[in-house]
Amino acid sequence: MKKVGVAILGFGTVGSGTYRILTEHKEFYKETQGVEITVESVLEKDKQRALDAGVPKEAIASNIAEVICDPDVGIVVEAIGGIGAAREYVLAALNAGKTVVTSNKELFCKYSHELERAAKRMNAGLYFEASCVGGVPIIRTLLDGLQANKITSMMGIINGTTNFVLTKMTENGASYEEAVKEAQKLGFAELDPTADVEGFDAAYKLSILSSLAFHTKVPFAKVFREGITEITKQDIADGKELGYRLKLLAIGKQSNSGIEVRVHPTFVPEVHPLAAVNDSFNAVFLKGDSVGDIMLYGRGAGALPTGSAIVSDIIYAATHTENRYSTFKNTANADKDVTFISDFRSAFYLRVSASDKSGVLSKICAVLAKFNVSIEKMAQRDEGEGKATLTFVTHETRELAVRNAIARVNALGFAQVQSVLRVVS
Amino acid sequence: MKKVGVAILGFGTVGSGTYRILTEHKEFYKETQGVEITVESVLEKDKQRALDAGVPKEAIASNIAEVICDPDVGIVVEAIGGIGAAREYVLAALNAGKTVVTSNKELFCKYSHELERAAKRMNAGLYFEASCVGGVPIIRTLLDGLQANKITSMMGIINGTTNFVLTKMTENGASYEEAVKEAQKLGFAELDPTADVEGFDAAYKLSILSSLAFHTKVPFAKVFREGITEITKQDIADGKELGYRLKLLAIGKQSNSGIEVRVHPTFVPEVHPLAAVNDSFNAVFLKGDSVGDIMLYGRGAGALPTGSAIVSDIIYAATHTENRYSTFKNTANADKDVTFISDFRSAFYLRVSASDKSGVLSKICAVLAKFNVSIEKMAQRDEGEGKATLTFVTHETRELAVRNAIARVNALGFAQVQSVLRVVS
Repeated sequence: MKKVGVAILGFGTVGSGTYRILTEHKEFYKETQGVEITVESVLEKDKQRALDAGVPKEAIASNIAEVICDPDVGIVVEAIGGIGAAREYVLAALNAGKTVVTSNKELFCKYSHELERAAKRMNAGLYFEASCVGGVPIIRTLLDGLQANKITSMMGIINGTTNFVLTKMTENGASYEEAVKEAQKLGFAELDPTADVEGFDAAYKLSILSSLAFHTKVPFAKVFREGITEITKQDIADGKELGYRLKLLAIGKQSNSGIEVRVHPTFVPEVHPLAAVNDSFNAVFLKGDSVGDIMLYGRGAGALPTGSAIVSDIIYAATHTENRYSTFKNTANADKDVTFISDFRSAFYLRVSASDKSGVLSKICAVLAKFNVSIEKMAQRDEGEGKATLTFVTHETRELAVRNAIARVNALGFAQVQSVLRVVS
Repeated sequence: MKKVGVAILGFGTVGSGTYRILTEHKEFYKETQGVEITVESVLEKDKQRALDAGVPKEAIASNIAEVICDPDVGIVVEAIGGIGAAREYVLAALNAGKTVVTSNKELFCKYSHELERAAKRMNAGLYFEASCVGGVPIIRTLLDGLQANKITSMMGIINGTTNFVLTKMTENGASYEEAVKEAQKLGFAELDPTADVEGFDAAYKLSILSSLAFHTKVPFAKVFREGITEITKQDIADGKELGYRLKLLAIGKQSNSGIEVRVHPTFVPEVHPLAAVNDSFNAVFLKGDSVGDIMLYGRGAGALPTGSAIVSDIIYAATHTENRYSTFKNTANADKDVTFISDFRSAFYLRVSASDKSGVLSKICAVLAKFNVSIEKMAQRDEGEGKATLTFVTHETRELAVRNAIARVNALGFAQVQSVLRVVS
């Protein structure tokens, strides 16, 4: 029977979930995986919290040095978050030859090169399944399940908070502010929800996932990012009428022209498998050149789902001595040979408020046509007081063309573009 | 750079798809996986077929001995199917110390014990991702992505042919016979569709997947199996009206009372993620005690999707020397300590044709009540000529209770149960 000792750094949601799974399933892993996993050490400022969860007093460490120097600890779980102490502790653990399992997307996104270098030098393992999409084994799938494929595109709902907010706005007609409040009340959003609602969290994950999918470093700085804070009830309602559901999508594409990576609110046709991914659920929809369309769906956060990913990594680490790192050339910066596309192609939804006079629509259409923005559908509704609202869905077009067309429409004097959203076509 | 030579046994859909992926992606795998994979040998009766696909003449073997004795062949892909030559050749390859990658669900379901024994003895690898759910890496996920979990249930649409047939019946109101004909015309069904429509194919796969999920051998003989040949337009239409979609589900459950495994047509609520899995797509919906609900969705068959699974296994085999077998105790028979449940619990849909007289409904309800079959919904429609059709959906109940109740209803003389289908509740 293989034996391995684990230290858990940070005993919040993720750390305590991991502890619970490991202690409750100890016999189960001996039987089914042939490995005995013991939690030797827990490092947590709030010691009482750890004691309350049943961690024995002698397993509670006072500082990182105690953990690093403990010869019984083979695997260190980092569940602190952020890039301060987490980075320092993880590097210390790797430099001491300990294998590290982390759920920290910001850390791995920004410092994977540094961490992998340290791990390789010390022949330690480095695992990060829990950093992306919680319990869904998307990283294992990219590394060991779909290697046969050139992945051409990836579209994911990879932030549970924003998906919960958008679902509430869609189902209950809630405003953005109301939906965020409900999410906070239920523990799906932080008191300061910036990292989620501005798309940072999704962008970290997209950086990691697209690096793996496209076999090259995709730095965070290359990810275009637009959050959901400007989304209105009207956007959601108009989209519904046109047969769309609004999702914060993380999109990665690779073609001969280069790589594009972007996080932004997007209208998804209601028949698309991603349209049915609601509440705090996550999903990643991939296209591979051999496998075709494939989707993984599950819980993207939470103590036990994220703990499931961490513990699965621990078991993997305990039973593998090979293939312990990611398979892209891991550097701090993007490969110089790789082109990153910033003038994306997409279909667009535009909502325009205009004077309700004859000739107005044709003038707006003329501007769009001038910039080669062709229209797939449009609708008009009378708002009274000489005003009308026009909604357009365009065919796929260049982002820059749409931006230029919008500036020109606004300059007409009698029309104002109120909302611009991308559409999955 | 690691180098590995591959032999492909059988050059039908799967074998030729595998050949195409390996030859087109040779440089890609060198770059991204650090492994050079060369097809050294193809064994196929119809040599012209292989030549037409571009296999060089000198790579076409005349018999299995040539393949086995070729020192350049490290990995043998079995894409013959069935349990005749396939079994013999796979055993010969393993006994010669070659690693085997197979897409053969019947072979692995029935003979995994024999194959794994030979593989272990010779220190050869044995991989079978392509045997279940085509390109979807469900086996890798169970082995290396969800090990932290006790899997409590599994529900899958794991046969593309029957899903195509049921989708056509649902969307176009086609009869079973018409839908099968269309599937045959489009290549989704064999000329003799028995293995698919009678549920054998799904039962082989369920045996393999539930053995992995539940960490114990689940023999084919333990899988309850009911096909879709008796399904009528009326069943589909009635289900639609009640908010259900009919799917051939493969269901595995594990609890303290034991394991149950069954393949049968099942009504799925239209809001369930599996209800939206249409045409020849497959999906597996799992519940793990930590991860919660998780679903994998993709193409369950076809040259390239199945080739994707085979080639991913080849790459895994070429880059791993550890963990090359399944992780359940692999024997020919079920573990004596394991109880297999045959009196399942399920909700049921019943369609009853009855005389349209007062008192009839109450007598039928009384019979159901007597057997503790409680009713969740019911509807009645007048068929004219003194006849009425009653449809019932029951609460979850024991299978045996429903069977006994049906026999008693039929014995009433004025009522005949025309259709009995299980319902996901």
